[in-house]
Amino acid sequence: MSADRLSSMSKEVKPDSISLCPLSAAAALEQELLCIFGTGDLGRSLGQRLLQTGYRVVYGSRRPHSCGLLPQGAQVRSHAAAAEPASLVFICIHREHYDFLETLAPHFKGKVLVDVSNNLKKNLYPEANAEYLQRLIPGAHVVKGFNTLSAWALQNGPSDANRQVYLCGNSAEAKEAVAEVATKLGFTVLDKGSLSSARELEDFPLQLFPEWRLPLRLAFGLTVFFFFYLLIRTVVSAYVEQGKDISFRIMASLANKVFPIVSLIMLSLCYLPGVIAAFLQLYRGTKYKRFPDWLDRWMLCRKQLGLLALGFASLHVLYTLIIPIRYYVRYRLAAATISEIRLNHTIPFDTTMAWRTDSYYAMGILGFGLYLLLGITSLPSVSNALSWREFSFIQSKLGYLTLFICTFHTYLYGWDKFLWVSGYTWYTPPGYMLSLVLPSAVMLLKLLLLFTYFGHIDSNSLVNSDFQSFFVNHQFTCMVKCVSLIHLLHIIFL
Amino acid sequence: MSADRLSSMSKEVKPDSISLCPLSAAAALEQELLCIFGTGDLGRSLGQRLLQTGYRVVYGSRRPHSCGLLPQGAQVRSHAAAAEPASLVFICIHREHYDFLETLAPHFKGKVLVDVSNNLKKNLYPEANAEYLQRLIPGAHVVKGFNTLSAWALQNGPSDANRQVYLCGNSAEAKEAVAEVATKLGFTVLDKGSLSSARELEDFPLQLFPEWRLPLRLAFGLTVFFFFYLLIRTVVSAYVEQGKDISFRIMASLANKVFPIVSLIMLSLCYLPGVIAAFLQLYRGTKYKRFPDWLDRWMLCRKQLGLLALGFASLHVLYTLIIPIRYYVRYRLAAATISEIRLNHTIPFDTTMAWRTDSYYAMGILGFGLYLLLGITSLPSVSNALSWREFSFIQSKLGYLTLFICTFHTYLYGWDKFLWVSGYTWYTPPGYMLSLVLPSAVMLLKLLLLFTYFGHIDSNSLVNSDFQSFFVNHQFTCMVKCVSLIHLLHIIFL
Amino acid sequence: MSADRLSSMSKEVKPDSISLCPLSAAAALEQELLCIFGTGDLGRSLGQRLLQTGYRVVYGSRRPHSCGLLPQGAQVRSHAAAAEPASLVFICIHREHYDFLETLAPHFKGKVLVDVSNNLKKNLYPEANAEYLQRLIPGAHVVKGFNTLSAWALQNGPSDANRQVYLCGNSAEAKEAVAEVATKLGFTVLDKGSLSSARELEDFPLQLFPEWRLPLRLAFGLTVFFFFYLLIRTVVSAYVEQGKDISFRIMASLANKVFPIVSLIMLSLCYLPGVIAAFLQLYRGTKYKRFPDWLDRWMLCRKQLGLLALGFASLHVLYTLIIPIRYYVRYRLAAATISEIRLNHTIPFDTTMAWRTDSYYAMGILGFGLYLLLGITSLPSVSNALSWREFSFIQSKLGYLTLFICTFHTYLYGWDKFLWVSGYTWYTPPGYMLSLVLPSAVMLLKLLLLFTYFGHIDSNSLVNSDFQSFFVNHQFTCMVKCVSLIHLLHIIFL
Repeated sequence: MSADRLSSMSKEVKPDSISLCPLSAAAALEQELLCIFGTGDLGRSLGQRLLQTGYRVVYGSRRPHSCGLLPQGAQVRSHAAAAEPASLVFICIHREHYDFLETLAPHFKGKVLVDVSNNLKKNLYPEANAEYLQRLIPGAHVVKGFNTLSAWALQNGPSDANRQVYLCGNSAEAKEAVAEVATKLGFTVLDKGSLSSARELEDFPLQLFPEWRLPLRLAFGLTVFFFFYLLIRTVVSAYVEQGKDISFRIMASLANKVFPIVSLIMLSLCYLPGVIAAFLQLYRGTKYKRFPDWLDRWMLCRKQLGLLALGFASLHVLYTLIIPIRYYVRYRLAAATISEIRLNHTIPFDTTMAWRTDSYYAMGILGFGLYLLLGITSLPSVSNALSWREFSFIQSKLGYLTLFICTFHTYLYGWDKFLWVSGYTWYTPPGYMLSLVLPSAVMLLKLLLLFTYFGHIDSNSLVNSDFQSFFVNHQFTCMVKCVSLIHLLHIIFL
Repeated sequence: MSADRLSSMSKEVKPDSISLCPLSAAAALEQELLCIFGTGDLGRSLGQRLLQTGYRVVYGSRRPHSCGLLPQGAQVRSHAAAAEPASLVFICIHREHYDFLETLAPHFKGKVLVDVSNNLKKNLYPEANAEYLQRLIPGAHVVKGFNTLSAWALQNGPSDANRQVYLCGNSAEAKEAVAEVATKLGFTVLDKGSLSSARELEDFPLQLFPEWRLPLRLAFGLTVFFFFYLLIRTVVSAYVEQGKDISFRIMASLANKVFPIVSLIMLSLCYLPGVIAAFLQLYRGTKYKRFPDWLDRWMLCRKQLGLLALGFASLHVLYTLIIPIRYYVRYRLAAATISEIRLNHTIPFDTTMAWRTDSYYAMGILGFGLYLLLGITSLPSVSNALSWREFSFIQSKLGYLTLFICTFHTYLYGWDKFLWVSGYTWYTPPGYMLSLVLPSAVMLLKLLLLFTYFGHIDSNSLVNSDFQSFFVNHQFTCMVKCVSLIHLLHIIFL
Repeated sequence: MSADRLSSMSKEVKPDSISLCPLSAAAALEQELLCIFGTGDLGRSLGQRLLQTGYRVVYGSRRPHSCGLLPQGAQVRSHAAAAEPASLVFICIHREHYDFLETLAPHFKGKVLVDVSNNLKKNLYPEANAEYLQRLIPGAHVVKGFNTLSAWALQNGPSDANRQVYLCGNSAEAKEAVAEVATKLGFTVLDKGSLSSARELEDFPLQLFPEWRLPLRLAFGLTVFFFFYLLIRTVVSAYVEQGKDISFRIMASLANKVFPIVSLIMLSLCYLPGVIAAFLQLYRGTKYKRFPDWLDRWMLCRKQLGLLALGFASLHVLYTLIIPIRYYVRYRLAAATISEIRLNHTIPFDTTMAWRTDSYYAMGILGFGLYLLLGITSLPSVSNALSWREFSFIQSKLGYLTLFICTFHTYLYGWDKFLWVSGYTWYTPPGYMLSLVLPSAVMLLKLLLLFTYFGHIDSNSLVNSDFQSFFVNHQFTCMVKCVSLIHLLHIIFL
């Protein structure tokens, strides 16, 4: 935005002035002067980039003559002198030093102030820096922006996670002026509305996967628990009871038990809150009461739970596929062949065993394939391209199908071992049995829910195509489709 | 957008009034009053969210005193009384009940009506709901929007497939006002142009993978056909002729034959329409006649065909990798070793066999790697970052290379078995032979096309860098590069 | 944008005229007349699409009566007559023929000219085509746009890599008018600022993975070098010294040595420039001097280096997983079992060997899992959703962790073979040893850097949350986290 246009903007509030914005003024764009307050890292990086893009830059400083190395080509003046000729001032100083800006308020009248500041922690202050700045200098048009970028990106231009500049502010014209600078620097601009969004923007650079914390902790806890549970059941018990050292199993065999168990449990934890919420709504008789906080938080991290579960499932797949190249496995197979020859007895081929193991593997492959599909549709660009009906079809219906197939895969693993007393070392059930509890419960509750809703169809009038169909129609077609799909799979593979 | 600004907008059509839009009015944003017509699920969800974001909400209802549970904090009035103080009215009622709105037309004068309605089916009405509404109340500025969101998203804010609000309408100012509300609710706004796009927006939530239907049906048909074809050839014939029950092979061996066959056929179906189109253009002598409808439809679902083919290829890879951990395979390998010892004869190492199987696997891995690359570049965010020259390089040239390598992989699988009479059980050719027909034909036609174009280069003047280069230059460099790449691969691996 | 609005826009520069933009004018949108200069492929494709969308199209031609087949419904006139009634003219002719446009300058006064032209090569002309056009006709509002689309996309509407129309121009109103046409054609519009960006837009369609060239060449060079190095060490030396033909190993065994070696080296090359840059800054004592050009270029292609490394790692994984189904491996395993029986001696189980190989595989799986995570977060849509702190956490910290685990994986592969003289065939070290040099050096330098910074913490005042924390705090917490993570992994797996 040219200086002309900016000044014409500031004149809009003084309706007696005449706005003249000749289109040919654009040619003068290159020499526009921008002011930067603050000569720290941020200010220098920004200034360097602005100079490279063709702007003229003037720094405002308390000590214009001793403020260290500044980008080549930039001027330095006192704050007031620097702000005077520019229509746009970047505030790259710490909030603690904002007070002195109040004294400059007359110089800022009608100008655009871009608040680039960040805090070191969340919630240090009652109001956002930009709102505080606007309060200090009511005559200026404060725009919050650029603060979500790294100094690296400010200096070198957009790259990967630094493509977008978020802006917010109360004046549309001021935002447009800042957006034009950002666009010239090569960034994509996203308008986040009025200055009340400033806190959100200021919190953004401080966040480090907030929505991943709960799922990560859960995954960590489950992993540690099952690791020690299985360690005791296998390695320790073998050492104590038979004096055998099978600790080498930790690296692969044990890991390949822990990962699928955690994966299945976390997958079922994705679907449990939905079922709980549905029962809660049934019990309350209304959909318009807020869920308890824990349930809300749980529902909001389902995606992360699912992606972590997918990660564990992938590890399980890789661990399973390296089985035949492991030294231990090769040794055991060779030993079995050798003993068969030495004892000179022929073990007959067991067709049931072939059916069982092949079904087990086939279910695992199908389940993992569906799992991957769920993961791919969670990619932002893919889910953005879907209508919510499509998204809910994949995440809800294919999700339940995935859960069903993965659970079935685990049941096939167990087969008849549920009844073997020898499996219950030290009176503890094997790990895979524990992992089956939650998914089985979720699927039972879901089935119950389906039938409950079937019983209620008549009493409900179909008011709206959204909610009710989501809980009734979709449920129904879902089940029909699931059943027919399972039927189909049955036909194909059995 | 503040109420002031909205009213000033509505005043624009009455040029005698004076527009006053003080910038400080933004502070009053929080208390803006919005009106919602309709107390169904959609209306309630929307109202709840608006209230949470800081708007004041008034519902318009036929029976203001008996319209059930509404979000806390919302008022309820008669339709006319509700619409009066608000400059923006959300119409969350069914199209069938729109008639009564006509009586309220004077109250809507200059106001923004947001049509949030959806229909239960496509093409129920000759014109879009929003266009019908605009026709009923010509004095209002109708904006279609929010209808692509689920009630869940309306109530709880943006998530995965519900990040974007599509708007369309004839008044830019009205759209801006609605966009501001949407932005405050946390959504990203996409302007879809004038109200003539309303039908598109109304059809959007009803669609369920329309472009995937044909490819899915095709994949399903091919899978079923080859499953039964191979079932009869292997399991049934073994049972009938030798009385052996090898039905356990269905789960893994048979699946691992069906999947690669379907995958290869579908990959070649991605490239067949392009070849047909080129021949059609050659035959017609022009590029400016539309293709027949079936060809158009076929070309539009190439991406989906390719992604399904990739899915089947992935299943093939997983099924291949579990081979060594299958009970049947382990049993057979052990049995072979045991019989070798018992018969006491040593089978010599066959170098040709080692070359052949290793080449077969290497081609499979390379083909799958390229396949994955094609899949990754199909992700919306990746393909958006590519120039069309880059995209066409990957999808066309690397695509043909993938097809070539995968076909070669299958030929290596066949090796000299093409000549074995014993392979033709019940006079039927093995499945992999059938799968080779189409890709071989596509590649032959493509070669033919390349040479046809070579003969025509001189007679064509290079007018434009687009079309012709696409069909001439690129083809040429493509072939040169392909040949050199194959040469290179040859050097490296052979 | 309606013709009214456009004309009102052109009137804005003549302030005596009265702007009348009735909102109901939108109904007349459909019949807007657009002019296209140029009847080549581009002009025809564009015209066809415009006609389909509901615009009226008039072509300007030197020979209006003999310009070949044009889209049905389009008119053809002389240039002047065609431009007269339209407010928007698409210039689809070659830059070489622009001169004659100068004579039409009076007809273009206040009109929008859309420069759609592309050049056959980069840097053919000193200024961009659009800037040249603007200089020829200063009275018109030149907008550069649509040139990044293929003729196919112009004719058939948006698809994959052709969804976005980039625009640039000096007049915001002119850009808006063009944006409206683009939106109606179904494209998404991205404003790239003033006309000075025109060259960038004109270079865009000519580029073919410019940022991938260096990494691809490097990968190719490394692959060829290690291929021949290992070929000589294994196949050739075996033939020369023992007369054995083990050339069949080329396809799988050799490839599975080359790929991981290249992958590890390229991964370490991703992190080497960062370390070099840090040392350079330490040595120079400032962060504000530009890096040498070679370092800048290197740093800009780290992402591509990393993705190629991931590709090679994936090939390594697939090649490793097919080991047990290879004929050669099966033969060798069976032969070992047979010889064990014939010699009648039992090889005892080696627990160390089991620990070692299982750890080796486990590290490989974990490293590959992290590697994949790095790859997924490089997807544009994923990295856009991350804050730069999150992005740098993953790419820097998890990146170093990946490098560490993959290097460790390779050390485990070597185990005690470093000391075996027999491994040094013809006095050359095995390939994996060569691959360990660079990653070990990078990690040593990084460690050195960490301790250097630790020594400097006191002397630095924490001025800004960006740069310094990036190099100090983050480094520190990074190390603490890394150590604790490694510790954790240690606990879990060892």
